[in-house]
Amino acid sequence: MQFDALSTPALMLDRNILLRNVAAMSARMKENGVALRPHLKTSKSADVARLATNGHSGAITVSTLAEAAYFLGKGFTDITYAVGFVPSKAPQAAALIAQGAKLNLVTDSLAAAQAMTAIEGDAVFPMLVEIDCGDNRAGVLADGPELLDIAQAIHEATNMELVGVMTHAGHSYGASNIAGVKAIAEDERSAVVHAATRLRNAGLPCPIVSAGSTPTAMYAEHFEGLTEMRPGVYMFQDLTQLSRGVCQRGDLALSVLASVIGHNRHAGHILLDSGALALSKDIGANAAWPDTGYGDVCDLTMQPFEGLYVSQVSQEHGIVPISDDSAFSRIPVGSKVRIAPNHACITAAAYSSYNIVEGDRVVDEWDRVNGW
Amino acid sequence: MQFDALSTPALMLDRNILLRNVAAMSARMKENGVALRPHLKTSKSADVARLATNGHSGAITVSTLAEAAYFLGKGFTDITYAVGFVPSKAPQAAALIAQGAKLNLVTDSLAAAQAMTAIEGDAVFPMLVEIDCGDNRAGVLADGPELLDIAQAIHEATNMELVGVMTHAGHSYGASNIAGVKAIAEDERSAVVHAATRLRNAGLPCPIVSAGSTPTAMYAEHFEGLTEMRPGVYMFQDLTQLSRGVCQRGDLALSVLASVIGHNRHAGHILLDSGALALSKDIGANAAWPDTGYGDVCDLTMQPFEGLYVSQVSQEHGIVPISDDSAFSRIPVGSKVRIAPNHACITAAAYSSYNIVEGDRVVDEWDRVNGW
Repeated sequence: MQFDALSTPALMLDRNILLRNVAAMSARMKENGVALRPHLKTSKSADVARLATNGHSGAITVSTLAEAAYFLGKGFTDITYAVGFVPSKAPQAAALIAQGAKLNLVTDSLAAAQAMTAIEGDAVFPMLVEIDCGDNRAGVLADGPELLDIAQAIHEATNMELVGVMTHAGHSYGASNIAGVKAIAEDERSAVVHAATRLRNAGLPCPIVSAGSTPTAMYAEHFEGLTEMRPGVYMFQDLTQLSRGVCQRGDLALSVLASVIGHNRHAGHILLDSGALALSKDIGANAAWPDTGYGDVCDLTMQPFEGLYVSQVSQEHGIVPISDDSAFSRIPVGSKVRIAPNHACITAAAYSSYNIVEGDRVVDEWDRVNGW
Repeated sequence: MQFDALSTPALMLDRNILLRNVAAMSARMKENGVALRPHLKTSKSADVARLATNGHSGAITVSTLAEAAYFLGKGFTDITYAVGFVPSKAPQAAALIAQGAKLNLVTDSLAAAQAMTAIEGDAVFPMLVEIDCGDNRAGVLADGPELLDIAQAIHEATNMELVGVMTHAGHSYGASNIAGVKAIAEDERSAVVHAATRLRNAGLPCPIVSAGSTPTAMYAEHFEGLTEMRPGVYMFQDLTQLSRGVCQRGDLALSVLASVIGHNRHAGHILLDSGALALSKDIGANAAWPDTGYGDVCDLTMQPFEGLYVSQVSQEHGIVPISDDSAFSRIPVGSKVRIAPNHACITAAAYSSYNIVEGDRVVDEWDRVNGW
């Protein structure tokens, strides 16, 4: 099928770029002797998960229990749900465990760990303690008192099993260059390894020592003491990663196919049928590249039209300002363009499936799971 | 069902507030002798559409062809698809017309109108010409030369029917007070009425003279010359409208139920399981209210916790900064809160259904249609 047969907006995933991206990360993790537990929060797709885990154990990371249920249904049994768990979600988690999932849960809260002990039923929940390695989002400090209190409470409970520690250097997305990423990668590694050492010194089990973000997985100097990495967006990459130098333009696997629906000559802009829902309102690349707006406008081969970007979005409209009228003839009304999005994870979430692209043809359609 | 039985994040719609909001707009349109063609881009729900069209003709507005197909399947036949149309979408539109839809399409492009004449098949497409009333998004100027050229091209075509003119004062969302809204409402009205007059003076038909946004529908001084209004977000309202004084806090029908999943004591914030996907990255209210972030944190009765708002989001995490530790005891780990979103249309799009709420109970579940 040619692109012209697709109704717009449509989500496009370039299979060859995807294959290259997952192969590179797979090889890097193997070379470094670290298990790869890819994060499927970006793709939410079993087809992508099969490629990303190829040659590895099949272990995966998810961001919602809906993803966990979907991937379990597709045969993935070793799953880490990497968002802080609370007992009110125990019925869903217990059901997945009963269906055969080895479902690792995460907490950074003594209160949550203590409340878990009151959950009724047969399920034994594998638990990871989350460490804050400098991201300042979730997690306890690796050298603070809470770590051992939480780990001890989990270890003593009859319905939980302490399986280790995990961290996520989300602040690596904000590094302005690769030297900055390398420094954050070392902070990430050393924090979670230090936490693991404290647990073991206290006589507590810690088989899993888990870290990972795409920038730190790609650029860490070494992974000593880590048992696994959990990168995710590397599979697709996006303008946010590109703007930080984490990837090259040719690594962008995801795009949105849009139609030109109007030329506003009095206002000096081109109108696309892809707006806040089709692209998302994420503007992550703008911190480094202010003229990225909601995405770069590219031709059907993903070559950027110089100077053309989506500057404003409303629900179903994207506005592309132009500096001179020649842009009107380059992308006439009715023509199609491809938009490189800021943040693949957020843009993809508006779609229920991927159009799988090879060159100028759509060769397949892959589903994805949304919601919670 | 009690709120506690819901897994989070969950989309909540307060039925009594919805009923009050739709009744007020319905009455206002009737008093002013203007037909109401509510925009369903916010709710994307047939249950909501039935309430919003109650006592009116059943005419509706949609923002995607997926919505048009969904609502046609639910018995709504008089539909305006209010985003610029291009011929590549003709197969979908023709299929809906063949199934009984009176599907009004929109253009502001002579090139698109001319290209429409080449579409093969039996369908006759009802067409509205879009007018720019000052929003500077889509539309031709009411007094410019393009209007009559486009209208004439449509009128002369055998597969199109010129049914009128339409405009949307999207810039009314940016007005800082009601006086500003009233001025924009008059610009909106006078522009589209002027365009209609020009068409009629040229001997062209113009049965539909359509305008509308929630602020202008609520506050216009009069609607002389208009045949219909197309407001949408008034049904749910949101923080963006509230921050402009368009509605009251008690008019907010939509919220997101979130769980507290962590207390980060060293960073001084509370973690919610509702982030960029559950709330969206829209920060529309921040222009007027900088301390709104990604949404207000409210208790289960929708009373705001003073000073608590979601300042940062990542994909599945929301961060609520606190000024002193008392907030930790007010919303402990495991407890649930409700978030009032910035922009109802964008937040709701992440969910496949609404939990319909009356008081502290969930009384029903209504579906919605997403995608394109």
